[in-house]
Amino acid sequence: MKDFIIIGNKAVTGGKISLNDLPGAAGRMDVLCRCVTASLFISFGMRRDVNVHLILKGGPEPHKIVRFNGETMRSLNPDERSSGSLIQKALLIPANETEKESTPGVFVRTGDLTVLLDEFKDKRPLYYLKEDGGDISDRVKSKDAADKFNDGVFILGDNQGVFEDDEAAIENAGASKISVGPVSLLSSQCITLILNAADRSEQNK
Amino acid sequence: MKDFIIIGNKAVTGGKISLNDLPGAAGRMDVLCRCVTASLFISFGMRRDVNVHLILKGGPEPHKIVRFNGETMRSLNPDERSSGSLIQKALLIPANETEKESTPGVFVRTGDLTVLLDEFKDKRPLYYLKEDGGDISDRVKSKDAADKFNDGVFILGDNQGVFEDDEAAIENAGASKISVGPVSLLSSQCITLILNAADRSEQNK
Repeated sequence: MKDFIIIGNKAVTGGKISLNDLPGAAGRMDVLCRCVTASLFISFGMRRDVNVHLILKGGPEPHKIVRFNGETMRSLNPDERSSGSLIQKALLIPANETEKESTPGVFVRTGDLTVLLDEFKDKRPLYYLKEDGGDISDRVKSKDAADKFNDGVFILGDNQGVFEDDEAAIENAGASKISVGPVSLLSSQCITLILNAADRSEQNK
Repeated sequence: MKDFIIIGNKAVTGGKISLNDLPGAAGRMDVLCRCVTASLFISFGMRRDVNVHLILKGGPEPHKIVRFNGETMRSLNPDERSSGSLIQKALLIPANETEKESTPGVFVRTGDLTVLLDEFKDKRPLYYLKEDGGDISDRVKSKDAADKFNDGVFILGDNQGVFEDDEAAIENAGASKISVGPVSLLSSQCITLILNAADRSEQNK
């Protein structure tokens, strides 16, 4: 099982978002849509052992967490508009702290990064994507390290990165900093590289 | 310099494509749009040493090649709709065998894979993405191999793969088969992995 947490610093939390303007009015929702595709899709199939948690912090409603669950996901295609449409539907139902399923495999609740960190802390290995982190290739060298990596919870920022308060919470939760190479990439590209490292380590077992 | 050639088997070649239906009426144009983003974008910038050649084979007009040139590209954002919009504009101008610039950094002409293979053959190293190819990590192990890889022309299919006639042309042109790992991935994800291997080899120089 792998979980990806992506922080959408400006992603809107309510109202009817326009699928024709995911980058603008929806607060760079396109970044989050690309992360959903990178996390869940392979050629001719879906990664059923992956959850994607999108943290929407852009208002006007309280912060929300939209979860895409690979195991039960239906009606999702790899294009941005497809995941955008499911996020749109999730934002239209009244949300509270209890998860509700808005469409098959998509869940919504109010909450932010601290909620997720409390749930995962001390139960699953936490990894924080950061340019100065250790290279992912070093995280899958031994069998034990690879087993841990393959059960990882991976936390990424969006195009604005991760702000100080979130970063402090991530560090307090004991996350290991990792990086994906010498060039700073889009969040969705980082997810592809993490999953490839995991796939390779599974093959080498 | 790196060039990516992506074969869009059903991607339409004319008419006004709808940005609201890139996967459907435009013939899985979303696949090609994601490949443009994967090829050209890094965090906070663009890969200026990359060209992307999209081969549109879906009709109704003759096959066309739309080229995105990283060096001179302007007005491109990472969302699918942005590259889709530039493809839309390219398809609206009359095309013949001579490249014309439709918007800054985007060029269009009639032609197909054989035209591109003739241009690159014996001048640049050709690589063909295929599940049974040699792993890309083996292509960047020595400095000579990495120098070659970093000047590569990489040929990929879309969601339908590469049909027999195109595959025969690729093999006749002497392309080396490469693969990106144990799991068959989206074309755009493969591009991310190729560029990461190249970035890492450049770092190790």
